[in-house]
Amino acid sequence: MACSTRSQPDCAKPRLLHEVDLARANASNVSIGEFQLIERFFKRSTLHSAYVALGAGDDCALLTAVSGEQWAVSIDTLIEGVHFLPDIDAAALGHKSLAVNLSDLAACGATPRCFFLALALPRVDETWLADFSRGLYELADAHQCVLAGGDTTRSRSGVVVTITALGSVPAGSALLRSGARVGDDIWVSGELGDAALGLAVRRGEIELAPVEAQQVVARLERPMPRVRLAERLRTVASAAIDISDGLVGDMRHVLRASAVGAAIEWARVPRSSVLQRQALLLQQRCALTGGDDYELLFTAPSDQREDVVAAAGADPVNRIGTVTATADLVVLDERGAPVDTVSGAYDHFGR
Amino acid sequence: MACSTRSQPDCAKPRLLHEVDLARANASNVSIGEFQLIERFFKRSTLHSAYVALGAGDDCALLTAVSGEQWAVSIDTLIEGVHFLPDIDAAALGHKSLAVNLSDLAACGATPRCFFLALALPRVDETWLADFSRGLYELADAHQCVLAGGDTTRSRSGVVVTITALGSVPAGSALLRSGARVGDDIWVSGELGDAALGLAVRRGEIELAPVEAQQVVARLERPMPRVRLAERLRTVASAAIDISDGLVGDMRHVLRASAVGAAIEWARVPRSSVLQRQALLLQQRCALTGGDDYELLFTAPSDQREDVVAAAGADPVNRIGTVTATADLVVLDERGAPVDTVSGAYDHFGR
Repeated sequence: MACSTRSQPDCAKPRLLHEVDLARANASNVSIGEFQLIERFFKRSTLHSAYVALGAGDDCALLTAVSGEQWAVSIDTLIEGVHFLPDIDAAALGHKSLAVNLSDLAACGATPRCFFLALALPRVDETWLADFSRGLYELADAHQCVLAGGDTTRSRSGVVVTITALGSVPAGSALLRSGARVGDDIWVSGELGDAALGLAVRRGEIELAPVEAQQVVARLERPMPRVRLAERLRTVASAAIDISDGLVGDMRHVLRASAVGAAIEWARVPRSSVLQRQALLLQQRCALTGGDDYELLFTAPSDQREDVVAAAGADPVNRIGTVTATADLVVLDERGAPVDTVSGAYDHFGR
Repeated sequence: MACSTRSQPDCAKPRLLHEVDLARANASNVSIGEFQLIERFFKRSTLHSAYVALGAGDDCALLTAVSGEQWAVSIDTLIEGVHFLPDIDAAALGHKSLAVNLSDLAACGATPRCFFLALALPRVDETWLADFSRGLYELADAHQCVLAGGDTTRSRSGVVVTITALGSVPAGSALLRSGARVGDDIWVSGELGDAALGLAVRRGEIELAPVEAQQVVARLERPMPRVRLAERLRTVASAAIDISDGLVGDMRHVLRASAVGAAIEWARVPRSSVLQRQALLLQQRCALTGGDDYELLFTAPSDQREDVVAAAGADPVNRIGTVTATADLVVLDERGAPVDTVSGAYDHFGR
């Protein structure tokens, strides 16, 4: 695997273990070394890609430059206790770590080609690693996205997963946040808010019937990036983003980049039947500012509604509002009254 | 910055803070939000690159594919308490985080073009961030390497820095670990072992005169990747790797990839005058298995010694041994007796 090891040297042993030696303290369950770990769980030669000339195993991976194309690159970190609960199923974490990056590629209309995995683990747990690897590869294989390199290290506390994903897009045709124009329709794929409801369930804050709980937790832990939909929207949509911070927060990113405003109709915001059975305030918090949806939020000229629907095909899309000239975002209820959206997007260091 | 925020949603507040809410607990010193943080410390528009069509600010960065070239990609994580001491100077950490990745690019003979930064911080400390950013950009600017995107998140404990660096190389001309041939010379740039000695100093395990201590600690905290040397060696060297795990461990990576052996002469292994004043055993541990050197270890046909020296120019290079047909690595002292190298390379999860 590219660039797989590196750490503080161990020049002057044997001596007292200092804090920096925690990485070597190996208190529990270490039966295989890093190189074997990579070989066993993350190195495969079965999947070939015209885009990856050399994969894991050297200092760098080598990627082929295809004339007339651009590379779209996304990087995302998931941290235990911050982005996922410590007891998350390892396969779900493997899936989600890649899914959030593929969702970023989708937001640009790019086709996933390969990815790089930096994995920091407090200990080696072979069952956990096998599950993580399985969840990761199931999604990667579904998109023929090759693991081209990585770095495994010991963490001091908790699992940290950073993935850099690369996709290809015809030069000049990537979907950007900055393309929204006054009068454009605002569209969203799928249904919003279930992931946020799923987190409340996982935290024990809300009780649902088992089948409902399972449905919303799956939306939280196994989001499906809208990769294929995004590819088809590339020639139709004027701007796009994926919803990770919540509809309101991510809409604001588009509005700021495009220097426009937006009016969204709450009644049109698509919600699952499970979410629709919750109290209105909870529905609004989950669907408007919940986040972790990984659906596509995009704009398109209003005279291209039929093209949008045709491009969407089997992927559900709903028109939820209009791009306006006011530098503001309003969400209106059925009576035309503004819905409180003050919670805004998630900000790691804000408030 | 590309893909800058994402976290567990905050659907059902106000409620008890659970563990996953630590990210929002914001106990100390939070005066600016994530978006402002990125704007203030990591977003610049002054440096332009023909390779980066779109930098930070959208879901993905867009990189230009240059016909006849390949992208070399490296990913590396540095974790507080594992890869660096908690009291490391922030500017040095910014420098080193990028340096270890540029060193991987150098090992392939690639020219650095851009990088992606995933930064997890336990809290926002503006002075620390300003210093980190300065150290990072000084090295990046020296190599005209553009910060093209990133992700800032809150960590639960300690700083975690993951950088993905991308460089370009003429298609088919990258230096690989697998190219060493029997009879080739083995070369190394610079001097080995000072970084390991510097760590011993920083840990308080060894005392040196202040000027000496400063010199070896700088080698630990501010390694200079051999980027320009590697570019010039591309047409001369048969195989290359950068020394991060220690000479012996990284030599073994080359030997395994090339299916050859090696005989190294201890007396030829270049060491600083500071290291040469230490006890022999310590010298050998530091220079052979210490690691963190970020010098180039490379092989070249023995009839090209003059070409190697010419390509090296002002960069110091030394011939330290020969590639052999035995599937083994031996380090021999002045009398031809084998030097103990059993400590081997650093393995995060080994032993």
